[in-house]
Amino acid sequence: MLMLQHTTRAFDADLEDLGAKIREMAELSEHQVRDAIEALAKRDAELAKRVISADDRVDALQRAIDDKAVAMIARWQPMAVDLRGILGALGISHEIERIADLAENVAKRVLVLNRQFSNYEVMLQIQRMAQLVLEQLRLVIQSYERRDTAAATEVWRKDQEIDALNNSLFRELLTYMMEDPHTITPCTHLLFCAKNIERMGDHATNIAEAVYYIVKGQALAGERPTMDITKISPQPPLT
Amino acid sequence: MLMLQHTTRAFDADLEDLGAKIREMAELSEHQVRDAIEALAKRDAELAKRVISADDRVDALQRAIDDKAVAMIARWQPMAVDLRGILGALGISHEIERIADLAENVAKRVLVLNRQFSNYEVMLQIQRMAQLVLEQLRLVIQSYERRDTAAATEVWRKDQEIDALNNSLFRELLTYMMEDPHTITPCTHLLFCAKNIERMGDHATNIAEAVYYIVKGQALAGERPTMDITKISPQPPLT
Repeated sequence: MLMLQHTTRAFDADLEDLGAKIREMAELSEHQVRDAIEALAKRDAELAKRVISADDRVDALQRAIDDKAVAMIARWQPMAVDLRGILGALGISHEIERIADLAENVAKRVLVLNRQFSNYEVMLQIQRMAQLVLEQLRLVIQSYERRDTAAATEVWRKDQEIDALNNSLFRELLTYMMEDPHTITPCTHLLFCAKNIERMGDHATNIAEAVYYIVKGQALAGERPTMDITKISPQPPLT
Repeated sequence: MLMLQHTTRAFDADLEDLGAKIREMAELSEHQVRDAIEALAKRDAELAKRVISADDRVDALQRAIDDKAVAMIARWQPMAVDLRGILGALGISHEIERIADLAENVAKRVLVLNRQFSNYEVMLQIQRMAQLVLEQLRLVIQSYERRDTAAATEVWRKDQEIDALNNSLFRELLTYMMEDPHTITPCTHLLFCAKNIERMGDHATNIAEAVYYIVKGQALAGERPTMDITKISPQPPLT
């Protein structure tokens, strides 16, 4: 019994260490998102390049988490909630890596955009979307650390707000493109930037699903409510 | 020893069953991609709706694979290559699920596009991209079944061709948009369709990386060569 307790405590310490690595990776990725959006707002090519080169650090952290998770399964041969804790961490680190990838892609587009089409209203909306995504990411990582399924479900539900902002930005960018064909190329890149941010939100909801799975051992039920009419609107927004 | 052999055979049978489920999921997803592209080419809303509703079957298969993988780890407490075989299968099923998601997204855009901007040249390029992706997917699943890292590495390398087609399509669609602002909305949806196909290719390369990891126990080395200048071109393609 003493042996079992000892072993359990050692496993928990290992799992906490895994959680600390996830937090480190999440914080680095938040930083990447913030910097990419700042680079976009200021058309700061130097900052964009730093975001691009820092992506390697996120990838390295992911590999460290992968390796540790595999070693933990081999060492502890865990069952039930312990096994789900490790597999869930693996899934979460993949989602965070993709968020950082999307930040890198925004940074790459900053290099293409240069000083073209620096529209204040549009940037304000992009920044608002990014703030929502960063808040979602912060909350979902907190829900993971606290194994709080109610908080995770809340993140999962709130993703619609980001979709709604993306929809309105989509329509707005199309009007700019129609009014002045010279803006078509930069606006197209901004459409993809907004889409990238919207996809970061999707990855945050995937993390919420992983938290739910870790705690409950089953999938978060029901289709996620989507408000992304850029995907499903039966009529084109503008003609 | 007899016992060990017996157990090993039972584990292998379990792993083969997991592989069969992966194949089933991959074939269903290939079907979804093919139908989504056909729906796009013919602007066939009914076919598009069938693609959208069939996505649930892909999701159900993924859940079955997840459940089986977790049960296998708990039952067999596998190490080394056996453990990697299960974790790799988990990763591969997630990648396939995302490919099917992207096919569903193309199908949703068919409903928006309706009969607008049915350009023969553009559709030919989109179909060519989709054919390449389907070939990549077929080859990478085969490399998984044969545990063939050389074939997997080949898939990983060939992704550039899809990126190159996406680049040329990106430029072409921008010219149509500039020539006639009425095409801006439909062309934007086609840009996202092409991007979706390009992303399917990325997921096929992620599967290639998983195959390499399963066999070798390490990551496929080196940055993937990217030719996607819609992401990184220092100059906008057109002004």
